[in-house]
Amino acid sequence: MAEAITPRSTDYSQWYLDVIKSAKLADYSPVRGCMIIRPNGYALWENMKEALDVMFKETGHENAYFPIFIPQSFLAREADHVEGFAKECAVVTHSRLKLDDEKGLIADPDSKLEENLVVRPTSETIIWDTYSRWIQSWRDLPILINQWANVVRWEMRTRLFLRTMEFLWQEGHTAHATEQEAIDETLTILDVYTKFAEEYMAVPVLKGVKTASERFAGAVETYCIEALMQDGKALQAGTSHFLGQNFAKAFNCQFQNANNELEYVWATSWGVSTRLIGALIMVHSDDAGLILPPRLAPTQVGLVPIYRTDEEKETVLSAAKEIQQELRAAGIRIHIDARDGFRPGWKFAEYEVQGVPVRLALGPRDVQNGTVEIARRDSGEKSSAPREGLAARMTDILEQVQQGLFDKALAHREANTTSVDTYDDFKAVLDDKGGFVLMHWDGTTETEAKIKEETKATIRCIPLEGYGDETGTDPVSGEPSKGRVVFARAY
Amino acid sequence: MAEAITPRSTDYSQWYLDVIKSAKLADYSPVRGCMIIRPNGYALWENMKEALDVMFKETGHENAYFPIFIPQSFLAREADHVEGFAKECAVVTHSRLKLDDEKGLIADPDSKLEENLVVRPTSETIIWDTYSRWIQSWRDLPILINQWANVVRWEMRTRLFLRTMEFLWQEGHTAHATEQEAIDETLTILDVYTKFAEEYMAVPVLKGVKTASERFAGAVETYCIEALMQDGKALQAGTSHFLGQNFAKAFNCQFQNANNELEYVWATSWGVSTRLIGALIMVHSDDAGLILPPRLAPTQVGLVPIYRTDEEKETVLSAAKEIQQELRAAGIRIHIDARDGFRPGWKFAEYEVQGVPVRLALGPRDVQNGTVEIARRDSGEKSSAPREGLAARMTDILEQVQQGLFDKALAHREANTTSVDTYDDFKAVLDDKGGFVLMHWDGTTETEAKIKEETKATIRCIPLEGYGDETGTDPVSGEPSKGRVVFARAY
Repeated sequence: MAEAITPRSTDYSQWYLDVIKSAKLADYSPVRGCMIIRPNGYALWENMKEALDVMFKETGHENAYFPIFIPQSFLAREADHVEGFAKECAVVTHSRLKLDDEKGLIADPDSKLEENLVVRPTSETIIWDTYSRWIQSWRDLPILINQWANVVRWEMRTRLFLRTMEFLWQEGHTAHATEQEAIDETLTILDVYTKFAEEYMAVPVLKGVKTASERFAGAVETYCIEALMQDGKALQAGTSHFLGQNFAKAFNCQFQNANNELEYVWATSWGVSTRLIGALIMVHSDDAGLILPPRLAPTQVGLVPIYRTDEEKETVLSAAKEIQQELRAAGIRIHIDARDGFRPGWKFAEYEVQGVPVRLALGPRDVQNGTVEIARRDSGEKSSAPREGLAARMTDILEQVQQGLFDKALAHREANTTSVDTYDDFKAVLDDKGGFVLMHWDGTTETEAKIKEETKATIRCIPLEGYGDETGTDPVSGEPSKGRVVFARAY
Repeated sequence: MAEAITPRSTDYSQWYLDVIKSAKLADYSPVRGCMIIRPNGYALWENMKEALDVMFKETGHENAYFPIFIPQSFLAREADHVEGFAKECAVVTHSRLKLDDEKGLIADPDSKLEENLVVRPTSETIIWDTYSRWIQSWRDLPILINQWANVVRWEMRTRLFLRTMEFLWQEGHTAHATEQEAIDETLTILDVYTKFAEEYMAVPVLKGVKTASERFAGAVETYCIEALMQDGKALQAGTSHFLGQNFAKAFNCQFQNANNELEYVWATSWGVSTRLIGALIMVHSDDAGLILPPRLAPTQVGLVPIYRTDEEKETVLSAAKEIQQELRAAGIRIHIDARDGFRPGWKFAEYEVQGVPVRLALGPRDVQNGTVEIARRDSGEKSSAPREGLAARMTDILEQVQQGLFDKALAHREANTTSVDTYDDFKAVLDDKGGFVLMHWDGTTETEAKIKEETKATIRCIPLEGYGDETGTDPVSGEPSKGRVVFARAY
């Protein structure tokens, strides 16, 4: 199995790919930029989906499904939107292949479409076209719909999970009678994303607002959560957009308000994607492979039975099944690796590289003594513990691991968040240490662009918390600043 | 709300579309042939998915995700497969749109792809290309993977749920070391589909084998389940294919067996789709709208509170919430329609048209008397019942409804299954009565084609049960027959 994983200190990028490969999370596909999500990766995505889906439903949302194809003319309806997405669209132009005597298989010229279709890069346009037919009166509002879907953006430089041509995501699209209600919705979702990142992924995030140049194409305001990876680079982990009336105007979606006046509908959209799996890997994992937070781990506890003789096998497996039953009854996802023909050490290594939070080992002597060996993936700590009360102990340990991963990631972020007051310090911190750098900014796109050009750092967000507490001077332009914003080099 | 639903006797096709519209299951989209699955329809699909997914996992399968795009050359690798799918493919030829001064938005000629991509109509080719890299030895087998995905087949004549250009489905793709193991897998899945159709959808199905001309493109044998609709037409509800070594050979997928010899891998694939929602509608629903089997209904019990004064409202709503709590604790999906501004009668009608299995009504007098009104959607039966023991009573009633729907559908199928011995009788039954017609067949594609040409009836399957019990003569060709097969006109 385990080909060696490149250490992080040697080559962080290669380490990331090695972890994905060794943990069997994903694989390249013959279509450049598209990935195959392997069963281990998909099981993780299923757990993420399920946790998010429950939270969406608790906040009043319903799921639906809109077509994958969008007429190209729809994209053009919203000026910023087409500007943002036209350059990275898979374009469907024909509806048939045919065998040509000379050229082999070709797109049948007779099947050329009257209007090209694009594979959705995001669904605002087709959804607002639909909403314009569904919404007549204030009684039809709000509409709170989410969809789980695949989308395609033609990326030139791709990277498993982080940036792929096709990815899986959820996209919420809501319609409201008032501006305030739409803004509230945007923030409700930002809170859902924050809760999910911190309580499930064990990834601390900063909440903030994007600058105009980093805004979603067609949004009035883009809110985001930003996470810090172990190599000091930032990763945008989710966005929630207040779209104002832009899409309602583009698709002529009006409603009759309670005073019988026609108004344009207010909109939001929001999404997180399989990109989160990339964040999860880069925040917690180590040189031995994947480390998963227990709340999302498909297998929380892996049990390796150890035996030599058939008699030992029977004794050990029967005890292992009792433990399995006990732990399952306590709601713990336990897996027994009872495969023949693989050594216990090999199985230990496999659970380790796949990030299973806790590994148990059970041999004939353990059965006799009423003990079991417990090994934690996060700390490497091993101990022998009594079988008695194992389920409760496991529940405790899993909670400790979950909290420990969050605490460690938070400490890392705090240690790698630096306030600077000069542009020289800014550059030095970026180069020597990385991380989030808090600096005053004059609020102009010009200064932002200059900094990006010169340092490759972007404004990750104007933080919701703390911004404006302290005014100052932008050290790059010398102009006044309303507060410190969060800079970083980013994925 | 409720626009009138066309009665089945007037126009069955229109009735079907009216039910979908009134129950808000789906809607047309601006892209011809693609549908929008509305929240009511999607919630139903989620319940279907969940039930199937549990059964797939219980039988050892894992979920994964493969790319939506397939290089066109992959389709050509398996001769029957390209023949079957090339004529109905969405072809991606470009990766960018650009604004042309004269023509407006066009596919940017500079972004023409080196090789066209097709949007997957099914994933055998890309998956077997992948398996050829994943499989080296018998230790890597079996692979038991399923994926939940969207697929596209460019259909000219579409119909909501039954036949759409894009649809949602699951597709299982398994790899095995031996022919027998692959055949067993095919049949295991046929049993899963049967169980799902009968126990969840309450739709009785016939299990059988397709004839050569109705086989999946690339399969050695296609197994299927066939259901009968209320109008006497058949609908294929799921297929499970034994693919032999066809795809392994096309993608050079070999493994080293335990004797160190190279062998081609044996394959299966199998799928059911959102088409099942069409079957569900057509088997159970009536002129008043949708009827849903309780095990799949997103809302199993709908409660309408009735009141005039604020005081009554408080009393009634508080009692309604108690009932909700009680029923939820018993695992029943209950919804209270507490909206102001809608009359109770309007709410009754909405639950009815949306197929909610049981509707409760609760007024101030009920609260006083400790009673509640119960109305069954299937029979229309209404009664007043004591609040005491309501959860247990509801559980009973929901089981009765589930079983009742199945029994009714089975009785309908039995009444509409006819054995005939002459071609004249065959035609008469098809025209006068419809349904499944059992007739001897000589086993040739010629006779099958002649019958299809002359009567529009196809062989739905060679039934697994009963076929061969009785030999005879094919009344069309006069040739000997090994057994009766199932003919019908079909969707």
